[in-house]
Amino acid sequence: MRMGLAHVRAAALGGCLAMLFATAHADEGMWTFNHFPSAKVQQAYGFEPSAQWLDHVRTASLRLPRGCSASFVSATGLVQTNHHCARDCLQQLSSPSSNLVQEGFYAAKPENEVKCPDVEANQLVGITDATAQVKEAVAGRDGQDYGRALREALARLQRDCAGGDDAIRCDVVELYRGGVYNVYKYHRYQDVRLVFAPEESIAFFGGDPDNFEFPRYDLDVAFLRVYDETGQPLNTQASYFAYAPHDANEGDLVFTSGNPGTTERLDTVAELEYDRDVVLPESLVYLAELRGLLLQFSAEGTEHARVAFAKLFAVENAYKARLGQFRALVNPSLIESRRRAENELRAKVAADPQFQQRVGDPWAAIALAVAHYRAVADRMEVVEEGRGSQSDLFAYARLLVRAAEQRQLPDIRRFQEFTDAGFPFTRQRLLANTPVSADLEKMLLRAWLVQLRRVLGPDDPLVRDVLGAQTADKMAAELVDGTRLADPAERKRLLMGGIEAIKNSHDPLIRFAQEVDKQAQIVRRDVEFNVEAVERRNAGAIAQAMFAANGTTVYPDATFSPRLSYGVVKGYDENGRHVRYYTTLGEAYGRATGADPLALPRSWVRARGDVDFNRKFNIVSTNDIVRGSSGSPVINTDGQIVGMIFDGNSQSLGGDFGFDDTVNRAIWVSVGAVREALTKIYGTTRLNRELGL
Amino acid sequence: MRMGLAHVRAAALGGCLAMLFATAHADEGMWTFNHFPSAKVQQAYGFEPSAQWLDHVRTASLRLPRGCSASFVSATGLVQTNHHCARDCLQQLSSPSSNLVQEGFYAAKPENEVKCPDVEANQLVGITDATAQVKEAVAGRDGQDYGRALREALARLQRDCAGGDDAIRCDVVELYRGGVYNVYKYHRYQDVRLVFAPEESIAFFGGDPDNFEFPRYDLDVAFLRVYDETGQPLNTQASYFAYAPHDANEGDLVFTSGNPGTTERLDTVAELEYDRDVVLPESLVYLAELRGLLLQFSAEGTEHARVAFAKLFAVENAYKARLGQFRALVNPSLIESRRRAENELRAKVAADPQFQQRVGDPWAAIALAVAHYRAVADRMEVVEEGRGSQSDLFAYARLLVRAAEQRQLPDIRRFQEFTDAGFPFTRQRLLANTPVSADLEKMLLRAWLVQLRRVLGPDDPLVRDVLGAQTADKMAAELVDGTRLADPAERKRLLMGGIEAIKNSHDPLIRFAQEVDKQAQIVRRDVEFNVEAVERRNAGAIAQAMFAANGTTVYPDATFSPRLSYGVVKGYDENGRHVRYYTTLGEAYGRATGADPLALPRSWVRARGDVDFNRKFNIVSTNDIVRGSSGSPVINTDGQIVGMIFDGNSQSLGGDFGFDDTVNRAIWVSVGAVREALTKIYGTTRLNRELGL
Repeated sequence: MRMGLAHVRAAALGGCLAMLFATAHADEGMWTFNHFPSAKVQQAYGFEPSAQWLDHVRTASLRLPRGCSASFVSATGLVQTNHHCARDCLQQLSSPSSNLVQEGFYAAKPENEVKCPDVEANQLVGITDATAQVKEAVAGRDGQDYGRALREALARLQRDCAGGDDAIRCDVVELYRGGVYNVYKYHRYQDVRLVFAPEESIAFFGGDPDNFEFPRYDLDVAFLRVYDETGQPLNTQASYFAYAPHDANEGDLVFTSGNPGTTERLDTVAELEYDRDVVLPESLVYLAELRGLLLQFSAEGTEHARVAFAKLFAVENAYKARLGQFRALVNPSLIESRRRAENELRAKVAADPQFQQRVGDPWAAIALAVAHYRAVADRMEVVEEGRGSQSDLFAYARLLVRAAEQRQLPDIRRFQEFTDAGFPFTRQRLLANTPVSADLEKMLLRAWLVQLRRVLGPDDPLVRDVLGAQTADKMAAELVDGTRLADPAERKRLLMGGIEAIKNSHDPLIRFAQEVDKQAQIVRRDVEFNVEAVERRNAGAIAQAMFAANGTTVYPDATFSPRLSYGVVKGYDENGRHVRYYTTLGEAYGRATGADPLALPRSWVRARGDVDFNRKFNIVSTNDIVRGSSGSPVINTDGQIVGMIFDGNSQSLGGDFGFDDTVNRAIWVSVGAVREALTKIYGTTRLNRELGL
Repeated sequence: MRMGLAHVRAAALGGCLAMLFATAHADEGMWTFNHFPSAKVQQAYGFEPSAQWLDHVRTASLRLPRGCSASFVSATGLVQTNHHCARDCLQQLSSPSSNLVQEGFYAAKPENEVKCPDVEANQLVGITDATAQVKEAVAGRDGQDYGRALREALARLQRDCAGGDDAIRCDVVELYRGGVYNVYKYHRYQDVRLVFAPEESIAFFGGDPDNFEFPRYDLDVAFLRVYDETGQPLNTQASYFAYAPHDANEGDLVFTSGNPGTTERLDTVAELEYDRDVVLPESLVYLAELRGLLLQFSAEGTEHARVAFAKLFAVENAYKARLGQFRALVNPSLIESRRRAENELRAKVAADPQFQQRVGDPWAAIALAVAHYRAVADRMEVVEEGRGSQSDLFAYARLLVRAAEQRQLPDIRRFQEFTDAGFPFTRQRLLANTPVSADLEKMLLRAWLVQLRRVLGPDDPLVRDVLGAQTADKMAAELVDGTRLADPAERKRLLMGGIEAIKNSHDPLIRFAQEVDKQAQIVRRDVEFNVEAVERRNAGAIAQAMFAANGTTVYPDATFSPRLSYGVVKGYDENGRHVRYYTTLGEAYGRATGADPLALPRSWVRARGDVDFNRKFNIVSTNDIVRGSSGSPVINTDGQIVGMIFDGNSQSLGGDFGFDDTVNRAIWVSVGAVREALTKIYGTTRLNRELGL
């Protein structure tokens, strides 16, 4: 889900939490591979990751750019990730007669492995520093001029790094809120195929009520395979994790290698208060209404339930995550401790007239940017951002309209997703052969039109232009029935045809998207230049102040780029009661009621007598993770995989803003449980052989 | 909607806003009839309401106990209220072939007037003070003992006042947060019939986007008639408002006489913060999800839209009201000003050792009660309170189960709604012949079961007992299909049959309600004794401190009992722009697009040429109102009706917590517009004659 200012700021802001606390917590931090605190780990745990160890972990780890992490687990490109990270693929490959989400999937033979329509996997192969180039490009600039110069510098760096090779993906990663710019170079793999997934009912046993909770009993695993450009399984002999022979035990040192999405551990107080008072409550009510719509839509019949399933999961998951963040922020101690730290740093800056003169008052400047955003937020959110239409068809239409226009511009002037560096990912989405449910599309488009009118008011020119004298219901039906964009061939024709094809198109959804897009681009540019650029520039100044005051031996905020966290396997106390660090397969059987969300799949019920009830199922550790870390391998000191992250406990949802290793826990599937399930329940002979089970 | 702690506290807490501000705002206050500040009005506006004037206004005003206000407007029992206050009646009298909500209604002949199944009207006939009796009854008591003694004292007062006469209704009204107890004696009328209602599209022109906004263009009016016990129209010769001959003008002094629901203008800071951080956000997301469910349910077809209409309106209305309250509370200046006032009063108390010793620290005690509530709030809300099932059938089942049990107890031990004084209202609801939609009931019951599991967790004993191995979907369907409670005769049989009838019933919904009710009563009693009683007792102590510090010439918080507010007709400034104090009928025509929510009804389109476009339509004034005031007559100094409240502007939604007469505005329908519509558009000859048009 893209949502709220939190998203707008995601690329712009980083931070250094450790500075905020008198003593940084022991296992806190999502560290970059090029600045991993090996000595600190050695000091705390007696193990010092070597450069070689780190390189192996880095290249065996993967990013799935739609919001997940993964890893290679065989020499022939086999990828392990979460079931919930493969859910979109499972849904796209399903049909009314075959529901792969519910039933699971297994390619018994190599040729049965089937391509996921729009999965991309990124393997990080190099990091270079580009701080100096960026600083030079924006030196002496301000306002819109700063924003434009920065965007052009980043686009240039990415283009030069990738060199026009679509198999290479380069992202400029802004660290420490603009204190550091690194270029991350990835191998980009777009031929990713489905190998195995269990049934939803065990992958997500306990359902939404159990989500973000522990104890937990989920086999949230799926296997994919990366193919090379010749159509052969990728050779990953040098970069994969072998399954650890033994289950993890309490006190074990473990590492998680993944792509935590965003944290706001150094947002200013003004930004946090805005999140608390506006962004999070408004996201929550938006998601709650969407959940209601999707629940009732799903109740209309089996086929509706099937086509809405992945969206409903995404909405419920985002809702619960946001609720946890909101609860963390309304706890007054969090913002108060941040206010103290901010005041301390401001006092230090004020005491240095030279520095003060150079940076001005970046906190006040950010507060003004937040105030500007407040005035345009509703329009930005509803017309362009996370509260916009959830309709896939409308998203296609808008991407096509924009691509035609943007691709005519010089590379450095385009929105990120249309630059030469960013476009392969956008193109994959546009051309993917994914099924479209007209019923679901109508519902989502109607809901958006209703929201548009509700939020902007019936007299808003956009509402008048777009809706005219139509009801939302009728208009949504006409657009969905009238468009041909459900056909990937038609999308390809319009994409390849460029601006002329769009201009000559009579597709009603294209026409409609053009109407909306005019307004959307106005507000997007306003926010880019008058909010994001201001935040960026001033957050960079704050970062400089922090470096000056406290040095740089700290980790940057999460930016959905590869990071390594360390921690130990460990239980915790909750409401005066100790929570053991693991659950067992037997406990899952004991908890099952036979009814959703506590119904075990038939395969599990049948194999009951064969399963080792004492086998550890899910395990918790103190590793610092956030969403985006889903699917991250959990690795022992030998560089073997002992588990895979699939969730954090409810306490960890405050991890956006801070970390508390007494109660924050990462939740993972133990590979021992995967082994037990594959051998005793699923009998996936070919896969088991490959995994060495 | 009953919802949240705000509701729990509604009866318990009052307050005196004026004390909180250095200077009370000129027109602030919802005053009781027995302590109306006539001298203050005289001083400000040169008009002093006499005792006779006040008596006339009081007896011509009505309370509709499901949450609205109204007034007599003819000598023969004709009642004017809002269309949205008659919407439930319109919906209940509709059928698949006749949608009175959309089409409107007019009884051209007296015998066409049709009884509203569950409307009650209350006319206030006397107020007596009972503070001394109550104080005596609870003297020296604490905790549960205090709660029990208070409840018994109130029940006794109500019973003694009504004397077993169902045509008399007596409520003990707790004013000034327990500083004062008054017994309000009403005539109770339960034979109320529908006379006229316009079409929904003009009653609610602009729909949800315009709700709580101004400028506005709504004919939100309906006419009912009260019949006496002999089945004749009630003789109201001595107590009705005549239509004013002229429209109101800017600067006119006007009074509103109605029943503002609740305000929290003297909640402690701990209570306000809890509202802001928990109650309001959780209500909002609950309402948002319910809106999503109802919107999608309504999209399934015309009949679904028809049966869900009134509920959807109620949900959208409550959502927007709550959003306004939330926005008022996150504005830091509000809580900060309250914190200052609270600290000042606490300092005064601390400076008086004698008082300090007598009352202890009531603020701390209330904060502890809030903390206790926090721990049980989810259960209370979902099992017993506002986030509970919206299913009418389940509500019947629970009322029947409880009535059987409660009616066996001594009167003074019962929950309020089952005391002899409170029961006629409950009984009316149970026995009303209102239609039930099985589809809607299944949806609402399913949604509640899903929520129950989500909030309490799948391992909660209640969830396990109630849901067992069933899916929510199947269980809801079985309960609704299996119950006979849709039939009023069956409900009557069970009600009359008492505990034996319930015990012998095999109705699945009765069995289910019994299961739920065991748990619900446990948490309700916990909250009554450990939260509400503590708040009550300590809020009373705070009130005593305030009286001691500041005297008693202030108004109490709203308690859904008759109040009189004064103010002037006046525009206001918004975003640097002046908003004129009225709109015109012509502007409504100008704004219409022909499509919902800006479609005028056919009757209006047809009469376009006959209507006086310059006639004032909606008007705003500075009167202090809140929800519950809907339908309140707006009266000039001559005691004539010039309009009828139907809304407040968005700024006024902060009225729960404070009043700002620079921007808070009451919105009303001008009677001139009603006159114009009845004569030029609707041609309601009989009604027009009665109104003297």
